[in-house]
Amino acid sequence: MNVLITGGAGFLGLQLARLLLKRGTLNLDGKAVTIDRLTLLDVVAPQIDDARVRAVTGDLSDPAVLAQAIDRDTGAIFHLAAVVSGQAEADFDLGMRVNLDASRALLETCRQLAHAPRVVFTSSVAVYGGKLPPVVQDDTALNPQSSYGVQKAIGELLLSDYSRRGFVDGRVLRLPTISVRPGKPNAAASSFASGIIREPLSGVAANCPVAPETPLWLLSPRGAIQALVNGIELDGARIGNRRVVNLPGLSVTAAQMVEALRRVAGDAVADRVTWEREERIEKIVGTWPAAWDVSRARELGFESDASFDDVIRAYAEDAAVKL
Amino acid sequence: MNVLITGGAGFLGLQLARLLLKRGTLNLDGKAVTIDRLTLLDVVAPQIDDARVRAVTGDLSDPAVLAQAIDRDTGAIFHLAAVVSGQAEADFDLGMRVNLDASRALLETCRQLAHAPRVVFTSSVAVYGGKLPPVVQDDTALNPQSSYGVQKAIGELLLSDYSRRGFVDGRVLRLPTISVRPGKPNAAASSFASGIIREPLSGVAANCPVAPETPLWLLSPRGAIQALVNGIELDGARIGNRRVVNLPGLSVTAAQMVEALRRVAGDAVADRVTWEREERIEKIVGTWPAAWDVSRARELGFESDASFDDVIRAYAEDAAVKL
Ligand SMILES: NC(=O)c1ccc[n+]([C@@H]2O[C@H](COP(=O)([O-])OP(=O)(O)OC[C@H]3O[C@@H](n4cnc5c(N)ncnc54)[C@H](O)[C@@H]3O)[C@@H](O)[C@H]2O)c1
Ligand SMILES: NC(=O)c1ccc[n+]([C@@H]2O[C@H](COP(=O)([O-])OP(=O)(O)OC[C@H]3O[C@@H](n4cnc5c(N)ncnc54)[C@H](O)[C@@H]3O)[C@@H](O)[C@H]2O)c1
Repeated sequence: MNVLITGGAGFLGLQLARLLLKRGTLNLDGKAVTIDRLTLLDVVAPQIDDARVRAVTGDLSDPAVLAQAIDRDTGAIFHLAAVVSGQAEADFDLGMRVNLDASRALLETCRQLAHAPRVVFTSSVAVYGGKLPPVVQDDTALNPQSSYGVQKAIGELLLSDYSRRGFVDGRVLRLPTISVRPGKPNAAASSFASGIIREPLSGVAANCPVAPETPLWLLSPRGAIQALVNGIELDGARIGNRRVVNLPGLSVTAAQMVEALRRVAGDAVADRVTWEREERIEKIVGTWPAAWDVSRARELGFESDASFDDVIRAYAEDAAVKL
Repeated sequence: MNVLITGGAGFLGLQLARLLLKRGTLNLDGKAVTIDRLTLLDVVAPQIDDARVRAVTGDLSDPAVLAQAIDRDTGAIFHLAAVVSGQAEADFDLGMRVNLDASRALLETCRQLAHAPRVVFTSSVAVYGGKLPPVVQDDTALNPQSSYGVQKAIGELLLSDYSRRGFVDGRVLRLPTISVRPGKPNAAASSFASGIIREPLSGVAANCPVAPETPLWLLSPRGAIQALVNGIELDGARIGNRRVVNLPGLSVTAAQMVEALRRVAGDAVADRVTWEREERIEKIVGTWPAAWDVSRARELGFESDASFDDVIRAYAEDAAVKL
């Protein structure tokens, strides 16, 4: 079987690729199916070396690129390519083109091939906003307050309809904010949720642009990758018509994150965090909810991290930072 | 000011056009603004004769047609053109092209002109489905079970985002099923909700394809037109960020509709209704909810019909049927 990861050179895409190559198989319908080829589609070339990997370097919104990436043997697609929230807010056209048009073109390519592949689509808590119930459910009303959230919500609706009609076998996973991301700050409004841990651990100051009591809903990179695999392996019948799942996360405030950092790495490290509020970020992050009912996700086999202290330790291990 | 009605040769479009021409003005920001020109865009030519009317006959999904229909003086747009539910389910591509792509192209045209016109978009109760709360709220989760419902939900999301960004001043009105429509049965799954009144009144048998106890949520054509005008006249500040309003309707079962017909027009007429269930229709209509909290709509000045008996009488009057 061929497997496709769009955004395969990105943060989650590359880690997922490594895990899939290590496993070598996906468990589908009770059978271990060998991954013969792993296609990584991205505008940048993936840094990975394995005979099974085929890089398709180009723009997902170009039909020719899509045609290269998907064939009738592509039984599993992880659709991760996206323009992140801050960027989609700053450049409306770019967000619409990649997050909406390209997602639709991908589904349309599958429909034309008529092989109904499994498709995991990564959505976001940014589909919520406004006045929310005390505890958010999978079917709490969508009320996105950013163009990124709107585009993800539309992607969810399209994937559900394409699944209902049998064009694809889709699964939408709403990811919590991923923390701790390695690397550099990016344009996502939630970039600080990794920065205030990652930067201090490497000796650099980092600003927290939201109030200390701001709640965040977090999942580690390892947890996210595991959830993506679980999402593709899930039996379609267990999801039924409810294609969208809010993944379990940890609900922690910005202050609690820095407290965990203090426990795990000490005062000198935690004191590198500054607290200057930035309205642009607060406006977006402030609409994201913090309390979730993820009982259905747990029934479906999805798990959260044990504690944020553990998440920091796992990051330090992966990034080879000494604590 | 110029006013545009897309789908201006359609059922609601034409009735709305007549009302607007009769009124001659729209009340915007406390001022009566004269309607200098009324543009009716539709694939078919509108049957209406008035010097203020300009017909643009063509496909809304053609950018050249849109460019002809909207200019900087177009201060109010009623976007009614759509492919109805049964047809959008039968012809997926057509529904996507008209209900999604053309709606987006219309919003995009406004964005390019940068004059932020008021836009009323008619959505539908078909955006709901699945397990619903006992009483549906404006912000009950969308869960469309048809491609039409998905396309309307996406239109709502786009209109909300285009409004939030200041590209248009949008208002989404979720119309109840309109009954009694004059004319012939159409491809909408709800076509029978007019047929079981209209056909018997003109001496013809009509089948009710759903169980007698099936609840419907109805608004008369007169009520709908009034709501569209109210929707465009509403002060944007009163809607705020909540651009979507469920319009008040009457909740009646199919059986109650025929009972009302019996009261208003007698046994001979009511006995022309047959009760053969059709699975295709039941599957769609069965997902539409029946109990609604429309307190916000009422606060905003929207009203329902007084009774279904009255609705039948008004239809008979408009259609010159003797009771
Ligand atoms: N990381 C998070 O906190 C988080 C949270 C919620 C949802 N998500 C979603 O998870 C997915 C993966 O996130 P990530 O953190 O790995 O993001 P990322 O930005 O690291 O990766 C996305 C990749 O998509 C690629 N890409 C962008 N536009 C493209 C195009 N037009 N054609 C081809 N490739 C294109 C980028 O080059 C990048 O490599 C995204 O869909 C994102 O919206 C992430
Ligand atoms: N009537 C109802 O029960 C009801 C209920 C809920 C929502 N709505 C919505 O209200 C609106 C008006 O409904 P209606 O009952 O008047 O429908 P209608 O079918 O009578 O009118 C729609 C008009 O749109 C036109 N149209 C379709 N595709 C077009 C295209 N590509 N370019 C230009 N014109 C095109 C058609 O020719 C038609 O005249 C629609 O958006 C509909 O979805 C209606």
